Amino acid sequence: MQFIILSGGSGKRLWPLSNDVRSKQFLKMLPGEAEEPESMIMRVYRQIMAVAGEAGVTIATGKKQVSAIKNQLGDKVNICVEPDRRDTFPAVCLSAAYLRDEQGASEEEAVVICPVDPYVEPGYFQALGEMAGLAGKGAARLVLMGIEPTYPSEKYGYIIPLSQEPVSGVKTFREKPDLETAREYLRQGALWNGGVFACKLGYLLERARERFGVSDYRSLYEKYEALERISFDYAVVEGEQSICVLRYRGTWKDIGTWNTFAETMERQTLGRVTLNETCENTHVVNELNIPILCMGCKNMVIAASGDGILVSDKEQSSYIKPFVEEMTGQVMYAEKSWGSFTVLDVQEESMTIRVVLKPGNSLHYHSHEHRNEVWTVAEGRGTVVLDGKERKVQPGDVVSMPAGCKHTVYAETQLQLIEVQLGRGISVEDKVKHER
Amino acid sequence: MQFIILSGGSGKRLWPLSNDVRSKQFLKMLPGEAEEPESMIMRVYRQIMAVAGEAGVTIATGKKQVSAIKNQLGDKVNICVEPDRRDTFPAVCLSAAYLRDEQGASEEEAVVICPVDPYVEPGYFQALGEMAGLAGKGAARLVLMGIEPTYPSEKYGYIIPLSQEPVSGVKTFREKPDLETAREYLRQGALWNGGVFACKLGYLLERARERFGVSDYRSLYEKYEALERISFDYAVVEGEQSICVLRYRGTWKDIGTWNTFAETMERQTLGRVTLNETCENTHVVNELNIPILCMGCKNMVIAASGDGILVSDKEQSSYIKPFVEEMTGQVMYAEKSWGSFTVLDVQEESMTIRVVLKPGNSLHYHSHEHRNEVWTVAEGRGTVVLDGKERKVQPGDVVSMPAGCKHTVYAETQLQLIEVQLGRGISVEDKVKHER
Repeated sequence: MQFIILSGGSGKRLWPLSNDVRSKQFLKMLPGEAEEPESMIMRVYRQIMAVAGEAGVTIATGKKQVSAIKNQLGDKVNICVEPDRRDTFPAVCLSAAYLRDEQGASEEEAVVICPVDPYVEPGYFQALGEMAGLAGKGAARLVLMGIEPTYPSEKYGYIIPLSQEPVSGVKTFREKPDLETAREYLRQGALWNGGVFACKLGYLLERARERFGVSDYRSLYEKYEALERISFDYAVVEGEQSICVLRYRGTWKDIGTWNTFAETMERQTLGRVTLNETCENTHVVNELNIPILCMGCKNMVIAASGDGILVSDKEQSSYIKPFVEEMTGQVMYAEKSWGSFTVLDVQEESMTIRVVLKPGNSLHYHSHEHRNEVWTVAEGRGTVVLDGKERKVQPGDVVSMPAGCKHTVYAETQLQLIEVQLGRGISVEDKVKHER
Repeated sequence: MQFIILSGGSGKRLWPLSNDVRSKQFLKMLPGEAEEPESMIMRVYRQIMAVAGEAGVTIATGKKQVSAIKNQLGDKVNICVEPDRRDTFPAVCLSAAYLRDEQGASEEEAVVICPVDPYVEPGYFQALGEMAGLAGKGAARLVLMGIEPTYPSEKYGYIIPLSQEPVSGVKTFREKPDLETAREYLRQGALWNGGVFACKLGYLLERARERFGVSDYRSLYEKYEALERISFDYAVVEGEQSICVLRYRGTWKDIGTWNTFAETMERQTLGRVTLNETCENTHVVNELNIPILCMGCKNMVIAASGDGILVSDKEQSSYIKPFVEEMTGQVMYAEKSWGSFTVLDVQEESMTIRVVLKPGNSLHYHSHEHRNEVWTVAEGRGTVVLDGKERKVQPGDVVSMPAGCKHTVYAETQLQLIEVQLGRGISVEDKVKHER
C-alpha cells in the first residue's frame, strides 16, 4: 500500500506563524505523544504508521518545503518534489510516476491520496486502509471518503451516496454549494468530500497519459511547468463512472484557519503569555522573546512571531488571507536544512541576523556582490572558509567578508553567528554560489 | 513666578511603552504643534511658556529621568534631582531649597507646584497664573485648584468650598471617598483636588524646617534618603487653615491609564498597524518593526514595544499594574543622554544590542569584568578608544573588546553599532567606569 500526502499551500491563513517558507503543516503546536508538541505532518505520518506500518509514504510538495520535511521526518518518507505548483492533478500524476519509475512500485498496487492538514482521530487512517483494500480488490476504479456532515457547510464539496451503507455507490458529486442547497443535500443524506482518494497506481498513470500524453516520471517532471493547473476532483472524479464511497463518522477538522486551529491546541497559551482572569475563550501563541499580557480578551486568537502580530476575534480570523497578501514583508524566520535564521534588525543600510547551524552542517559556499558581511561567533566551534582559506573559529571570534569574498562556515558543534550585513539595497537575490 | 513640575513615577500603567527608564511623561504620542507628536512633559512646558513666558520652570525628578528631560527640553528648564524617591512632600521641599539656594529665588516669590501628567487645555495654565497671583498677594497662605467634577469619582480627593465663587475659602478637604460619599460631595458642590498648589517660596521652606529640622538645599539633599515618605497633601494641606481654592472648569484628564491615554491620541494607530473594517473603538501603538494586524477588535487597546505586548479591553487596562510588577524583564529599549540602545536578541551566553550615538556624543570610558564585546559599525563615523589607543572607524569596521579592555567610542556623525556581548551571566551590573 502506498500513501501520497499532498503537502501544498503557503498557509497564509495561519499568519504570522506560517509564511512562504514555513507552511502551517510544519508548526509544532499540536498535542503530540510524550508531551512533545508535534506538527500536522508529524501527526499524519505517526497516525499512518500506527495503522499501516508497512506502507510506503510519499510526500508531494514544492522545493521550499523539502528542508522542513527532512528536519521533521528524517529520511523515513519519500519526497516527490514538484518543480512548480500546478494544483493537485499534476502533483498526483508526478507522484504516481515517481512511485513506479523511481521507487519500483507496481501498477497494481493500491494508492491512497490524502491532504496533509485534516485533524483526525486514528479511525480515519483505518478508513484509509479500508479504502486501499476496496481499490486493490477492484470494488470500483476510484474510492472516495465521505465524511458524515455535522452542519450544512458551504466550504466543502458533497457526495450523494446511493445508499446509507458503510460502502456505497455514488449518485452525484457536487462542488461547494450555497447554504440552501447544502441543507437540501443534508436532507438527501449527502456526505462531505474529504479530499481523499484511493485507486490502483496504474489508474493514475492512465489518467496522466490521457490528459498530458505521457506518464513517465522524467517526461512529466520536465514538462511540469507547462502542465495544466487543474484539481484532481475536476480532472478525474467528476468524469469517473466507477466510484464508490466509504463513510467516515469520526472527528474530522479542517485546521486551516486560526479559529479551528485554536480548537486543537492542548493549552490556551504557548510561549511567554499572561492571561488575566477576565479573559475568555482566548488562545495565544507567542514565539517572540518578549511577554504578551492579555486583559479582558474574549473569543480571541493572538499570535506573534518574527513576521508580525495578529490580534483577532476568532470568527473574524477566517478572513485573514487578503490582509496577509498585502503584507509582502521580509521573511523574519526560516528553518533550513542546515539550521535556521532569524532577522533581528533591519535598518536602511544594514541588517542583523542570527544564524544557527546544526552540528555537521555548512552553508553553501557563496559571495555577495553588493554587501559586506561581518560574523561574530556567539556560540559553538567551527571552520570558516574565506576565498579558499580555512580558519577555526570559537565564541568571540570575528570574521569580516567584504563584497566579492567567497565564504562559508562548517559547524563542528551547534554554531551561532550574529551576522551584520552592510550596504545599500541589501537583497536575498544578491548571492552567487560557488563550487569548493 | 516659579513652576515646580513633579515628574515622578515609573509609569507601569502604560506598559509596555513606559518602563523603569522611560516614564509615561516622555512618550511622544500626544498631538503636538506642526504635526510633530509631543510628550506630556513637552506639552506641559509648551503650555506654561504660552501663558507665562518669563516664569522659571524647575522639574523635580529622579536620576533616571535626567537624560530624557534634557533630550526633550534641552537646557531650558532647571532640574532638581532627588537622590531617592520619597513621595511629594520631600520632593517639594528639596525643590524649594534648590530654588532659593542654587537659583537665588526670593522667599517672597510665588511658586506653583503641579504634576506632569494631566492632559489639559491652555485655560488651565492661565488658572495656574491666577493662583500664583493670589499666593503672591497673600490672599491665603496656600492656594489650591478645584476642578469642577464631571462624575462622582472614587479616584480623586475632594475640596468642599465655602462658596460657588471663582475663588473661595475651603470648608473641608477629603481624601478619595467611596461612591456614595462622592455623590454626596457632588450634591454639596465639592470640587476635585487637582494636585496643584500655589504659595510663597518661604512658606514651603518653613514647612520643611518644621518637619525635617532643616531647609537648606545641601542639608536636605544629604539626608534625603532618610526623610519621611509623605505626600504634600498629608504633610501640608490637611493641617493648613489659611487655604483658598480657585475653580477650573475646562478639560482635565488624568492620562495615567491606557483607557484615558487612548482618548488623547489624535489617530487610532501609531506605527505599522492594519485594522480591518470590523474593528471598533480600538487604539493601537506599535513601536516594533513588524506589522500588527487587528481583526474584529472592539473597545481594545493594543501596544507593542521591545519590552512586551499588551492586548487589553480598554476598561480592563486600568488594572494592569500588578501584572506589570511581576514582569521583571530586561529593559529592551532606553533613551540615554548620548543616544539610545535597543536589545535585539538575548541568548544564554550572548546578547545583541543596537547602540545609536548622537553626533558629538560618546559613551563613558568603561570595561567589563566578565564579558567580551564586539562592535560592528553599521552606520556613521567616529573614534574608538581601546586601552588608551585611538582608532577611527567607519561602516563595516569591527572592534573586539575582551573582558578587562577599557573602551569607549566618540561619534563624529550619528553612529550606529551592533554590539554582541559574550559570556556567562551577562549583567548591567558588570561595568567599571574609568577616567580618561
